[in-house]
Amino acid sequence: MSLRIAEIFGPTIQGEGALIGQPTVFVRAGGCDYRCSWCDSMHAVDSRYRQDWAVMDAAGIMAEVARLSGGQPLVVSISGGNPAIQDFGPVIALGRGQGYRFACETQGSVARDWFADLALLVLSPKPPSSGQETDWAVFDACLAAAGKAERIMKIVVFDQNDLDWARATSVRYPDLPLYLQPGNPETDPEKPVDPQALADRMLWLVEATVGRGWLVPRILPQLHVLIWGNRRGV
Amino acid sequence: MSLRIAEIFGPTIQGEGALIGQPTVFVRAGGCDYRCSWCDSMHAVDSRYRQDWAVMDAAGIMAEVARLSGGQPLVVSISGGNPAIQDFGPVIALGRGQGYRFACETQGSVARDWFADLALLVLSPKPPSSGQETDWAVFDACLAAAGKAERIMKIVVFDQNDLDWARATSVRYPDLPLYLQPGNPETDPEKPVDPQALADRMLWLVEATVGRGWLVPRILPQLHVLIWGNRRGV
Repeated sequence: MSLRIAEIFGPTIQGEGALIGQPTVFVRAGGCDYRCSWCDSMHAVDSRYRQDWAVMDAAGIMAEVARLSGGQPLVVSISGGNPAIQDFGPVIALGRGQGYRFACETQGSVARDWFADLALLVLSPKPPSSGQETDWAVFDACLAAAGKAERIMKIVVFDQNDLDWARATSVRYPDLPLYLQPGNPETDPEKPVDPQALADRMLWLVEATVGRGWLVPRILPQLHVLIWGNRRGV
Repeated sequence: MSLRIAEIFGPTIQGEGALIGQPTVFVRAGGCDYRCSWCDSMHAVDSRYRQDWAVMDAAGIMAEVARLSGGQPLVVSISGGNPAIQDFGPVIALGRGQGYRFACETQGSVARDWFADLALLVLSPKPPSSGQETDWAVFDACLAAAGKAERIMKIVVFDQNDLDWARATSVRYPDLPLYLQPGNPETDPEKPVDPQALADRMLWLVEATVGRGWLVPRILPQLHVLIWGNRRGV
């Protein structure tokens, strides 16, 4: 069973969501069924970059994770692209046997039975600014597939329209912990990121939610962008 | 039963630790048994500011929390100063009955039976740069008092010496989830904070921990400082 892998890197800290700050090795899958207008990981999405992706099996992936982590079991985050278009079941089974815990981030467009073997399933449906549409029946199937694994929903917010959509989505899933994250319009890895602009986007999002009495979501920035800008492999 | 309260503010997001990003109202107690060299909340510590503190009872405190939150139950963070030098038991009992959940942040120098009624007890022992010394027998009593409440340890790190101390402390409490936070040397509320300097301190701390194979602690910045600088009441 071979998998297309765009990059494996770390250990670094998780920059987003429920495990923010947690030491993590990232396994970034190559390939995606979405084409978000503001995608910050196009090198792992567009098949134009396919020649840069490695073809690896579960043993090869876990050997690289173990090399990077010095053999210390830690959280492995499977991201992409959309990792759910491939079968990560064997990687998770092998890694769990070695003491690793797995998180997976996906938009919720493909349900997989291996979601149930995760420590955390992060479902990140894409708001209107992405240009994508969510199939909620499939999204519900993803939630169900996760079984007793911890599940959260993370929504990137670029503007008020996205925020209205996030709020409507939150009403649909009242029991799913919700994280909001300001969108990053500066995704060129060659250009420096302005930390003040990032702080300003956080301020806008906090004022537009908590400041207006919506006290449900947790609001978090992308820490890795604050620390490293759009550099890859950190 | 009256309590000295330096400020009640919010809702805003929790800027630090395990509940980072969570909508929260803060109840900041006045008075402290410590005098950390780099204290960022001296207005709630030094009895020089005592005339600025309100004297309130549990009903008055929860009325103000409810006014700020529009009556929506949310997380109330009891901070200070050191809130454990006062009896917040009646506040927590009253608030829990109204649907609020409570977190409390304290250095662990005074154990209280009301710790067991918290949703989260954040123990933040102070590293050498603070100039304070931890009485570990009392710290252990705080842990025990929390009973089944969730407990975490958060340590502020200014330099390598603090980091070595945090690591030794972590060895002493292997089962206590550990959060590290870079220290903020710029605490003047009148002066703007440089977000790039904050990013640089995060980079240093991540490289000095995860980058050197210490994969235990979660590393988080002070989000409120990124967003608002050292302004009070946010």
